[in-house]
Amino acid sequence: MNFTDTAISDIDGLIEKSWTAFHQYRKLPLSARATFMRTIAEEMDLAGDDLIATAMRETNLPEARLKSERNRTMFQLRSYGEAAERGDWLEAIIDTADDARNPPKPDIRKMLVPLGPVVVFGASNFPFAYSTAGGDTACAFAAGCSVIVKAHPAHPGTSAIVAEAIHKAISRCGLPEDLFIHVYGAGTETGKTLVTHPKVKAVGFTGSYTGGKALFDWANQRKEPIPVFAEMSSVNPVFLFPDQLKKNTEQTAEWYGGSITLGVGQFCTNPGLLIGIAGDDLDRFTALLGKKINSTSPGKMLHQGIANAYHEKKQTALSQKGNELVAESEVKAAADEAEATLAHTVADTFISNPVLHQEIFGPYSLVIACKDEKEMQKVAAGLEGQLTATLMATENDIRNNEELVETIKNLCGRLIVNGVPTGVEVCLAMQHGGPFPATTDSRFTSVGADGIKRFARPLAFQSWPDSLLPDELKNANPLGIIRTVNNEPTKNSLIK
Amino acid sequence: MNFTDTAISDIDGLIEKSWTAFHQYRKLPLSARATFMRTIAEEMDLAGDDLIATAMRETNLPEARLKSERNRTMFQLRSYGEAAERGDWLEAIIDTADDARNPPKPDIRKMLVPLGPVVVFGASNFPFAYSTAGGDTACAFAAGCSVIVKAHPAHPGTSAIVAEAIHKAISRCGLPEDLFIHVYGAGTETGKTLVTHPKVKAVGFTGSYTGGKALFDWANQRKEPIPVFAEMSSVNPVFLFPDQLKKNTEQTAEWYGGSITLGVGQFCTNPGLLIGIAGDDLDRFTALLGKKINSTSPGKMLHQGIANAYHEKKQTALSQKGNELVAESEVKAAADEAEATLAHTVADTFISNPVLHQEIFGPYSLVIACKDEKEMQKVAAGLEGQLTATLMATENDIRNNEELVETIKNLCGRLIVNGVPTGVEVCLAMQHGGPFPATTDSRFTSVGADGIKRFARPLAFQSWPDSLLPDELKNANPLGIIRTVNNEPTKNSLIK
Repeated sequence: MNFTDTAISDIDGLIEKSWTAFHQYRKLPLSARATFMRTIAEEMDLAGDDLIATAMRETNLPEARLKSERNRTMFQLRSYGEAAERGDWLEAIIDTADDARNPPKPDIRKMLVPLGPVVVFGASNFPFAYSTAGGDTACAFAAGCSVIVKAHPAHPGTSAIVAEAIHKAISRCGLPEDLFIHVYGAGTETGKTLVTHPKVKAVGFTGSYTGGKALFDWANQRKEPIPVFAEMSSVNPVFLFPDQLKKNTEQTAEWYGGSITLGVGQFCTNPGLLIGIAGDDLDRFTALLGKKINSTSPGKMLHQGIANAYHEKKQTALSQKGNELVAESEVKAAADEAEATLAHTVADTFISNPVLHQEIFGPYSLVIACKDEKEMQKVAAGLEGQLTATLMATENDIRNNEELVETIKNLCGRLIVNGVPTGVEVCLAMQHGGPFPATTDSRFTSVGADGIKRFARPLAFQSWPDSLLPDELKNANPLGIIRTVNNEPTKNSLIK
Repeated sequence: MNFTDTAISDIDGLIEKSWTAFHQYRKLPLSARATFMRTIAEEMDLAGDDLIATAMRETNLPEARLKSERNRTMFQLRSYGEAAERGDWLEAIIDTADDARNPPKPDIRKMLVPLGPVVVFGASNFPFAYSTAGGDTACAFAAGCSVIVKAHPAHPGTSAIVAEAIHKAISRCGLPEDLFIHVYGAGTETGKTLVTHPKVKAVGFTGSYTGGKALFDWANQRKEPIPVFAEMSSVNPVFLFPDQLKKNTEQTAEWYGGSITLGVGQFCTNPGLLIGIAGDDLDRFTALLGKKINSTSPGKMLHQGIANAYHEKKQTALSQKGNELVAESEVKAAADEAEATLAHTVADTFISNPVLHQEIFGPYSLVIACKDEKEMQKVAAGLEGQLTATLMATENDIRNNEELVETIKNLCGRLIVNGVPTGVEVCLAMQHGGPFPATTDSRFTSVGADGIKRFARPLAFQSWPDSLLPDELKNANPLGIIRTVNNEPTKNSLIK
């Protein structure tokens, strides 16, 4: 198949159409959004083996992984649609009038309303779950926005099939055709033209720091700046506390051997730093983990560009003074493959060398040996913002290191105890976002239905006649949603 | 009194202290935040007549207004403190584990945690409610942040007394002294140094477009960009629908005569555009309103700079082709005063001249005569983002103009029916924020306890032992807060 870039001169017209579709879609009831999203999931399922085969060819990901990723994507669409309909995310709040007060208190009611057309840039490492009909698109549709997706140049055929599924769902649900627009363009000009268009009102992105930061800057330099949620870069530090490491050396090495190499290390939550206290336990852990790394076969990466970047960044890291190779896959990797790699350094070296703080996208991890907990604290305090951090720790370890644990809390979006960071559960309590540079706005998440709030804003209605209010805010609460009425959460009607 | 600028070289040390205080304060229970905020309110009250007299001298605002603004500020501190303690704003969400699922589902719980030190820039027009201990400071303290306030150069003495009240409250509550830091500096360098410091994590601002936009740009150009909530500029359009205007011409003129001139027009919600349909009713309204304007005495503005800007912008507006003066205060204004002013133009002229769209801070309003509802729609579609919009409309007017009403919904943060935009109720349902340039992020509010969320971000705890979780997320729900447990809002304990 051949995918021609969308002409830059066509983009304005496409976004005008998206703007018109937005104004039709935003007025529809929440239930219509949910039905639409369920229908997209159905159509993705109906796309069948062709979709899986195309994605396998374009991404080098194995069939089982892609099938499970498609299921996850369908679950996202359905569960975010259900959440949209359940209405908690609307943050409906009602403060009733008090005419007896001097001056009289007006009736004020607010709820979230959609921002407008959203541009979505998908990720190469999640061709379904964070691409064309992925989390950002699902959140935008749930919020009531229209969506423009720029197909990822590494999987244009996959993107085309999913786009077709969305269009079939639009047609089956009788929605405006331009509610979803699919654009091709590998160069930066396409992205810039999309993000800087005055009628685009928000951006969702999952990918590299360079890509996300460019979008963020373009969006902020507009006459009317718009919100960008870019999920970019994270090394996901793991803190190996002494009590836990002593008791569970083998299991920890086992778990992390798996987590570092899962999916050829191509996850944004891949654990890139293993921070422990120098000594026999850490040595034994490093040796055991090294064995696991040695025996891991190299794997084909998503595309040649990502493989090149891996080899280059790994080389740069290993050429830094004081950063030593511990283990690599014993089988030599081909040019489009990545070999698992474990390196080792000491805290001082790490702290003073920013190169070692950078994400190396792929199955690479660095053991950092600290003299003591105090030095662990110094390492933690010097880290940039992260999607996740993990404590391999007993309860005593946590109690005895309060300051360190508080420092770690302050730098990440999700804090795991005795687990691995890979595997991002799709649920309401999930936070997949963190302080910069993990994301561009730590106050939002891109996984879980709370991600809908990225694309919505509160609108307050003051002194409106009940019959003209949106159903969400009417006295009778016809939708039966949770609302905060005079500071008290309730699903009750206001009519006594 | 003499207020020396804080030396730029001292700022780094002050922010380091704020950072240390933040890490102590953030760990305290919600109840400690509420007690602290109540104590600040008490101390503001105890500051007594001296505070009011100083503010009168520095702002030219009358005693009654300042006394009521102090009460409002104390109410904000108390009610946001109560909200902090009530805990709804934490958005506590729990998804419990499911070991039977394959793969097992981990236990994940999230809640909002504070961002870090917040820099607050107060407003000249609200020396109490949006200044030193105003809404932004109250929200930041409620969120668990430390605060650095740059005193407004137009009321340094007022700011000093309020800062002293905060310090007394800190001392009475046994909190770290540097939880609140007060800085002077009239030049831009002080502001820039504060906003670009790596340990400052958010900014709150109320003031001019020029000031807010500069802070926003500095914050986004940092190595680690940080959120800025700047409430900047709004002309608060009022749409005079035909049915309503015909039935209530006199009352509408009466209300708007009051709203335009209230507090010498120095409110961010001052109604600057009155958009109606050309004809006898609009003419009669304009004539009645003109009479009110004629009979309004000029009032002293907050300071000479604001008075100069008013006279200059008014002159520029009235020199635009097709923009006619309708009425002014009959008594001539002194150089530091503003005369109430009403102007008139037609829709075509307004639409094609961006100068007429700009806010003129003060008692100035412009009547825009449209040929029909279709032209009203064109005017609405061409407006920038607004804090408020108002419909003077009967139910029929609203039903008959669905597209127009939808367009208006899309451009503002608060939509009033048959009222005036001045008067911003402090309650949870309030939205005081709107699409750019009204604010820099339409997803947040600076009035009402939801403003706390500007300064907090979600942190998810995965697989934590119950005893080590924050109280907010423990199984027993010891704080009795509302939480969403497995998608259902409840105050129940998880222990059966």
